Amino acid sequence: MKSSTLPLKLSHLDQQGAARMVDVADKPIQHRVAVAEARLTCQPATIRALKAEALKKGDALCVARIAGIQAAKQTPQLIPLCHPLPLNKVSVEFRTGRDFIRILCEVATDAKTGVEMEALTGASLAALALYDMMKAIDKTMVIEGLRVVKKEKR
Amino acid sequence: MKSSTLPLKLSHLDQQGAARMVDVADKPIQHRVAVAEARLTCQPATIRALKAEALKKGDALCVARIAGIQAAKQTPQLIPLCHPLPLNKVSVEFRTGRDFIRILCEVATDAKTGVEMEALTGASLAALALYDMMKAIDKTMVIEGLRVVKKEKR
Amino acid sequence: MKSSTLPLKLSHLDQQGAARMVDVADKPIQHRVAVAEARLTCQPATIRALKAEALKKGDALCVARIAGIQAAKQTPQLIPLCHPLPLNKVSVEFRTGRDFIRILCEVATDAKTGVEMEALTGASLAALALYDMMKAIDKTMVIEGLRVVKKEKR
Amino acid sequence: MKSSTLPLKLSHLDQQGAARMVDVADKPIQHRVAVAEARLTCQPATIRALKAEALKKGDALCVARIAGIQAAKQTPQLIPLCHPLPLNKVSVEFRTGRDFIRILCEVATDAKTGVEMEALTGASLAALALYDMMKAIDKTMVIEGLRVVKKEKR
Amino acid sequence: MKSSTLPLKLSHLDQQGAARMVDVADKPIQHRVAVAEARLTCQPATIRALKAEALKKGDALCVARIAGIQAAKQTPQLIPLCHPLPLNKVSVEFRTGRDFIRILCEVATDAKTGVEMEALTGASLAALALYDMMKAIDKTMVIEGLRVVKKEKR
Amino acid sequence: MKSSTLPLKLSHLDQQGAARMVDVADKPIQHRVAVAEARLTCQPATIRALKAEALKKGDALCVARIAGIQAAKQTPQLIPLCHPLPLNKVSVEFRTGRDFIRILCEVATDAKTGVEMEALTGASLAALALYDMMKAIDKTMVIEGLRVVKKEKR
Repeated sequence: MKSSTLPLKLSHLDQQGAARMVDVADKPIQHRVAVAEARLTCQPATIRALKAEALKKGDALCVARIAGIQAAKQTPQLIPLCHPLPLNKVSVEFRTGRDFIRILCEVATDAKTGVEMEALTGASLAALALYDMMKAIDKTMVIEGLRVVKKEKR
Repeated sequence: MKSSTLPLKLSHLDQQGAARMVDVADKPIQHRVAVAEARLTCQPATIRALKAEALKKGDALCVARIAGIQAAKQTPQLIPLCHPLPLNKVSVEFRTGRDFIRILCEVATDAKTGVEMEALTGASLAALALYDMMKAIDKTMVIEGLRVVKKEKR
Repeated sequence: MKSSTLPLKLSHLDQQGAARMVDVADKPIQHRVAVAEARLTCQPATIRALKAEALKKGDALCVARIAGIQAAKQTPQLIPLCHPLPLNKVSVEFRTGRDFIRILCEVATDAKTGVEMEALTGASLAALALYDMMKAIDKTMVIEGLRVVKKEKR
Repeated sequence: MKSSTLPLKLSHLDQQGAARMVDVADKPIQHRVAVAEARLTCQPATIRALKAEALKKGDALCVARIAGIQAAKQTPQLIPLCHPLPLNKVSVEFRTGRDFIRILCEVATDAKTGVEMEALTGASLAALALYDMMKAIDKTMVIEGLRVVKKEKR
Repeated sequence: MKSSTLPLKLSHLDQQGAARMVDVADKPIQHRVAVAEARLTCQPATIRALKAEALKKGDALCVARIAGIQAAKQTPQLIPLCHPLPLNKVSVEFRTGRDFIRILCEVATDAKTGVEMEALTGASLAALALYDMMKAIDKTMVIEGLRVVKKEKR
Repeated sequence: MKSSTLPLKLSHLDQQGAARMVDVADKPIQHRVAVAEARLTCQPATIRALKAEALKKGDALCVARIAGIQAAKQTPQLIPLCHPLPLNKVSVEFRTGRDFIRILCEVATDAKTGVEMEALTGASLAALALYDMMKAIDKTMVIEGLRVVKKEKR
């Protein structure tokens, strides 16, 4: 079996296993978009509390949105081997269910490398900022399903 | 039904729904510990690639560990309503299964408020740093079950 | 005249005029509060646009509030000779007039030195974040009257 | 009256009022310059103290200049919806009057979006760094007239 | 003698001696590479301790490598007059002698200005991170010979 | 020989060699001071250029001083396993010889752990900021002798 004798190679480590930022010098600048999502599961009463705040124009979703946008911009400081990139756009969106909130983060760039880590980092920190605001009323929350749901370049 | 007419109140928003850092002036300084975990699910071949790197003393787990430790220290910059705290300790640990890696982050402080957000942020960024290094060989990865597994004060 | 021959001495510069962080080792830890304000002047139509967003539960004031809170926490990175301090509380409040928005930022700590720079930095960045969101519709905005309005210790 | 029934729309908020970084993908890269100014008003004796330091080659104006330059570079971390941009140049200049200091900050880039927020942030933090150094000798200082005085692209 | 009457002029200061970021608007974007090195001298027993950790797959060199890579990316926040640049690549390498460790940091970009400060900052922080991990067992360490060893553009 | 069979153990790595922030919970808060130095060697003409700037009240030394002070405050972000600490004081001093500049950085705290890494980081970045300003006129500069010269607690 090939896979056990010759395992896949991690691109961010060199032949000696040393971490490095991969050289992207020869890659073309392309328009790239990525969308990541996460799902914060919680008690139905927590969703009701969040909606009650929203009815009063409360800041809860906005705080999480800004946390996600700011985190996406800081990705190269947070993920050690990520390249610093200019970003054209970052947006964060929420969809509430009966006992969960879905968080979607979309990032776009014109760059030599993609923005899936930016989208994942944005979705993750938006979810954590929500968690922070709701943790006093709900001890059951879990963040599930943090993944990339769209990745395009052209 | 009480819960719909009088929903729970988010502590980080004031009566008008405005976000604020909660005043912790009157809380006592206590020794506080929190542990959070996340689970990065992936292909079995990805686990084999990661272990092959480890056999060669590769840096993959170390990079993720440092990402988690650094993120835990930066939590007040990342989570808008978190208080800046001195930290006594941050550690990140990994346990690999056949098709997943469990990430555990422990944080300790002597402070007026707890460190669960620091532990969650550390676990989340450690998982994302692993994701970053393995994303070229595995398009199926998802981060699941990011939650607090221990919280103590004395 | 004494003041011209023997001018006042800047505390942050030593005898040779070299900048330094003043040594606060011998100062007692005290509870300290500071409030700063700024006034963003603009067209009445801009205030109406801001209120229309608020009626729709728009994020404008929240974005500015988070910018102010985050900036207050980052003051020691922004003001070169400021000491890093733990903060008990940061809050930002807005009051709209016909053609201006008043921004108030309150910061509290238990520390060896005060938080007026944190309050000023928070008020300033909250005002600038508002400016950023409204600059496409109003070319006449000016930030006036950035000052400390309250400073206490006990 | 049109303006009250159909108020101006804030570009940084979407139809639902949610904050986002505006997508600049389709904007051309242009050479852009912005200059912002602020005026720190103070006691005449404070200006004399500042000039006395300058005669001794004191660092006061330099500290403020560096605070402004560093803040201009950090604008995307400070203003939540600002895009990260490469900067060609940042400079900060001071002009003292009898009872005020004028602070000018100029920023230039080749980018898809302008640098007025960078210039305003630079001027604001330069003024605040001066305030910090002089606050022990003058309790009357106020920062006035923070505005954009020049904005060009070609 | 020309050099004493007309000394060399520092490019980062204007005619009045004021610090500024040099304007790079008219410089062409070129491919640029820089390599810097530093040498951490220590006791032979410290080198043996480091190698013993390496044999156990310990994280010591990896921690230093990540410190160097992260610092190289943060150079414009650390060196006041440096321009923010996109980076194509950062790598850090170690070579151990009997009583020293040589640290090499290579940085590449396509930009209007070079990356020697990024390479020096990376080498310096990688050396300091090693120092931090070994300081409990060796009080004799010194960092020597921090310099640029290669600088190219095309 | 004992030292080869039982080498010294790095305190920042656990039994498995994993990096961690050492737990300082049980250490007492003490007053701690550290001084580090570095020596930037250069051409005599470069020293003359620097002094000529100083005569004109140029900013060169001030820029380096602020770079050192700011870097000392950011040490926990730069050195992965360092603890975030409150600092009582940071100062940076320069002494010029015929063909070198000595940089001294002093840091003081009341904390559970020392500040030698803060002093070393401050001295290193102050030296690098000087290097940056003088690199256009001198290609021979090297930073030597970066070490701790004083460390006290009481």
